[in-house]
Amino acid sequence: MTKLALVRHGQSAWNLENRFTGWWDADLTEKGEAEARHSGTLLKGVDADFRAAFTSVQTRAIRTLWMALTEMGRVWVPVEKNWQLNERHYGGLTGLDKAETAAKHGDEQVHIWRRSYDVPPPPIDEDSQYNPAKDPRYKGIDVPATESLKSTLERVLPYWTSEIAPVLSAGTDTVIAAHGNSLRALVKHLFNVPDESITGIEIPTGNPLLIDLDANLKPVSVRYLDPERATPLPELP
Amino acid sequence: MTKLALVRHGQSAWNLENRFTGWWDADLTEKGEAEARHSGTLLKGVDADFRAAFTSVQTRAIRTLWMALTEMGRVWVPVEKNWQLNERHYGGLTGLDKAETAAKHGDEQVHIWRRSYDVPPPPIDEDSQYNPAKDPRYKGIDVPATESLKSTLERVLPYWTSEIAPVLSAGTDTVIAAHGNSLRALVKHLFNVPDESITGIEIPTGNPLLIDLDANLKPVSVRYLDPERATPLPELP
Repeated sequence: MTKLALVRHGQSAWNLENRFTGWWDADLTEKGEAEARHSGTLLKGVDADFRAAFTSVQTRAIRTLWMALTEMGRVWVPVEKNWQLNERHYGGLTGLDKAETAAKHGDEQVHIWRRSYDVPPPPIDEDSQYNPAKDPRYKGIDVPATESLKSTLERVLPYWTSEIAPVLSAGTDTVIAAHGNSLRALVKHLFNVPDESITGIEIPTGNPLLIDLDANLKPVSVRYLDPERATPLPELP
Repeated sequence: MTKLALVRHGQSAWNLENRFTGWWDADLTEKGEAEARHSGTLLKGVDADFRAAFTSVQTRAIRTLWMALTEMGRVWVPVEKNWQLNERHYGGLTGLDKAETAAKHGDEQVHIWRRSYDVPPPPIDEDSQYNPAKDPRYKGIDVPATESLKSTLERVLPYWTSEIAPVLSAGTDTVIAAHGNSLRALVKHLFNVPDESITGIEIPTGNPLLIDLDANLKPVSVRYLDPERATPLPELP
């Protein structure tokens, strides 16, 4: 059995301000850092030999992983960073807070963008101060202008298949530190969650989801490391 | 011209206690952390586009790199960790402080081990509490029992040739965060420093050595980023 731990990054400055973050590179707050360390403490208690780690190219996920590995006494584990594990790109909503979004688009429309599987928000303005297209980390990458959960999954999955799945198939226990929606995309794939119910899956911050995978990478058990703070689990396929 | 920055990790707990550290995984002190951040601040001021980074599998070098990248706003840069960039293994001296070593072996012998190119200290006891052979990070690796600077160079160079040189040859500005002796090995190779004089080269902590390399990876200029705290520079070949 191979172990896969999914770690959602802790609170960021923009989570705190209730702003749509997406590809904006908001850093962790102090609370977010404490959540990252707590994830590491929980992972340290798992009977596993974590020797591979993956994360996005966003500071809040990378630093969550670094802090967790530090708590685990495993800073030496190889870490692969890739934009395909980034958060869903919230397009023109990026940078808006709850009130601004509601005023501009109406609550119902915002709820649709948040909770539907395949409806993307309007694209980000090319010259928006929040447009990540000119960020040097995305040099050579065809940066999207907006994403639905579906289009997020469509770039997470190829990375899973080409880079992560082979490592797990070789029997290497693995940690993925990423974002609400890129982790949701992985959970949808691994557990065959239907389009309609996937937005109901929400991995808590500071509470890794631990999955036992068989030789075909089919989940055979799944649990949150801190059962007291658990949200609904995906059903085993 | 491609830029290569060599960063020596900051003060570790065992540097402070004057103990031979080698492959023992002593962590940074608060002063060492400040030196790491200072290296990052200096690197941030360099007109370069650092997109690759290499380090050892030892916590003090990894954390130095992480802290420097954080100061540079570049935590997203890919990082490769490899034991071949580790500090020189001090064999049976590992864990001994200055006084213990002198009492056990005499000052003159210790000076020879420290400053000669090819004389290794006695091998570490297999059951020494400081023997890294059973550390999980070295699983599958033929851990040495002691090393001279020469034998350090003999494992640093193959890694340079196969992994680092191709990245630099492709024109990617690169940071290497490592240790006094693994960096010395690289400097010896790059600047053709004779065996007799290489131990006179000592990169300071918190003061990166910046090298401009031509298309054949020949150094064409070299300087410390903080000239006020510079030690003697290697001569251009």
